[in-house]
Amino acid sequence: MQRLLDTVERGRRTMAVVSPYDRATLVASASALKDGIVEPILIGEERRIRESAQTYGIETSGMEIVDSKDEKIIEDACDLYNWNRVHFIMKGMVGTGYFFHIVLEPRFKIRTERILSHVGVFEIPQTKRIFLMSDAGINILPNFSRKIHIVANAVEAARWLGIGLVRVGMLAAVEKVNLPAMPATLDAFLMKKYAETGYFGACEIDGPFAFDNAVDPECAGTKGIGGKVAGQANVLIVPNIETGNAIWKSITCLQKKEAAGVVLGGACPIVVPSRSDDHLTKLASIKLACLLMG
Amino acid sequence: MQRLLDTVERGRRTMAVVSPYDRATLVASASALKDGIVEPILIGEERRIRESAQTYGIETSGMEIVDSKDEKIIEDACDLYNWNRVHFIMKGMVGTGYFFHIVLEPRFKIRTERILSHVGVFEIPQTKRIFLMSDAGINILPNFSRKIHIVANAVEAARWLGIGLVRVGMLAAVEKVNLPAMPATLDAFLMKKYAETGYFGACEIDGPFAFDNAVDPECAGTKGIGGKVAGQANVLIVPNIETGNAIWKSITCLQKKEAAGVVLGGACPIVVPSRSDDHLTKLASIKLACLLMG
Repeated sequence: MQRLLDTVERGRRTMAVVSPYDRATLVASASALKDGIVEPILIGEERRIRESAQTYGIETSGMEIVDSKDEKIIEDACDLYNWNRVHFIMKGMVGTGYFFHIVLEPRFKIRTERILSHVGVFEIPQTKRIFLMSDAGINILPNFSRKIHIVANAVEAARWLGIGLVRVGMLAAVEKVNLPAMPATLDAFLMKKYAETGYFGACEIDGPFAFDNAVDPECAGTKGIGGKVAGQANVLIVPNIETGNAIWKSITCLQKKEAAGVVLGGACPIVVPSRSDDHLTKLASIKLACLLMG
Repeated sequence: MQRLLDTVERGRRTMAVVSPYDRATLVASASALKDGIVEPILIGEERRIRESAQTYGIETSGMEIVDSKDEKIIEDACDLYNWNRVHFIMKGMVGTGYFFHIVLEPRFKIRTERILSHVGVFEIPQTKRIFLMSDAGINILPNFSRKIHIVANAVEAARWLGIGLVRVGMLAAVEKVNLPAMPATLDAFLMKKYAETGYFGACEIDGPFAFDNAVDPECAGTKGIGGKVAGQANVLIVPNIETGNAIWKSITCLQKKEAAGVVLGGACPIVVPSRSDDHLTKLASIKLACLLMG
């Protein structure tokens, strides 16, 4: 995971940081600058930014600060994107719903025809492999047409990360289509069929899979589940946000493994960390955003 | 976990085993007998049972075999329960839906006014604590009234296992009620309120919680989430079967920790193992069924 994130090229990116008043966002921004990864532009009430930085002992001298307040903060960040002054945007201390409400206004050129989805990247210690997972952050109970965008965003991210053969496992609680009780199993089956049209480009999509049979070759083998994805998935599509959240928290919080996440589907990646993410996760997410722009 | 299951009293229970043709069911039955925990009565096509036992090198001489076939197998098991010949029933090689279709017929006295729910028991290695989780096996997307039964079954199970203060964490993806997007968050809030009426007896119920904030005191502390359950839950109620399945498989399959599960809500516990459970899990589930009868 660390090796992957360390492949990010130095000194090529700029980032608008919205309301960077908390320690983790300030430390991650300062670290990213120090590491030569991105040039952050801090946007918010200048006095409050400077006070926070002083409180937490963070050096802001190398970072441009744009004094702004209220919704103007988010608008300024989006304007910087429109003017090609920044490559991407990061959210600090502002509500996610309110943030996207403004970011997605058509006058800013961030909205696209795709829907937004959260793509997380993490390592499952027991498998020693990197996984992308979507969507544990934005889409709560996506229908099939939203899942097409979720898969497309995740597959594209996997390609940007240099994953040779993208293997998408559509998660559910069982391996067979079970209707009408378990709609996620039908979506998994249909996504596999839809992928055969070539819509997602060269990749393997299969499912439904229970979690173990998607990620662990031994489990899949014991159950006699074949195909090119079983036990070897590197992209996991969860049926609902609760499932994604439980997998994500089990690995990041209980097993203390690093993770990174960005929101894709806009014209640029958007770094939208969770309230509970520490500065290491925020820094990893900044690096991920850089990698996902090639 | 092992210590808990080893508290089961010896030599007091009898169990009807439906269609014990597979290795894991036969080994678990023979081990349970050898350990002096239960006396299994094997029900199915006698020749097939004997052939399987011979193939897998399992001694059946101490076990009564009832020769039976087709749906008569399940009916015979239920009749043994009606006649007080067995204390509980275990499912072998027969479809779960078909199995319950017969078991729940009113002429057998197994159906009660409660709904059936699966209660799993496992250890989360990082926390070194025992957890009960429901429902990762029967109820797919339970509504609030079904959740009341699910909670009641799980709380009762926790008491039988000797857990002093039962702390129920209602899982979701966030800690706040979020409507109309996330109905599970409202159910969690309402369940807490309903528990205040005393319906579940002495126990603490709280939520909604993301997985980490329910089980890990450090995570809950970092996020400033208070109350008597946050970080200290010993019963987890999942919002849907996919979430339960992902948590269960992450711990049993990836982290190779023991687990046990039974179906509660009937007049006796019913052991309904998953296809992929090995003989250790099946034996642990037999022990759990014994413990849950006091």
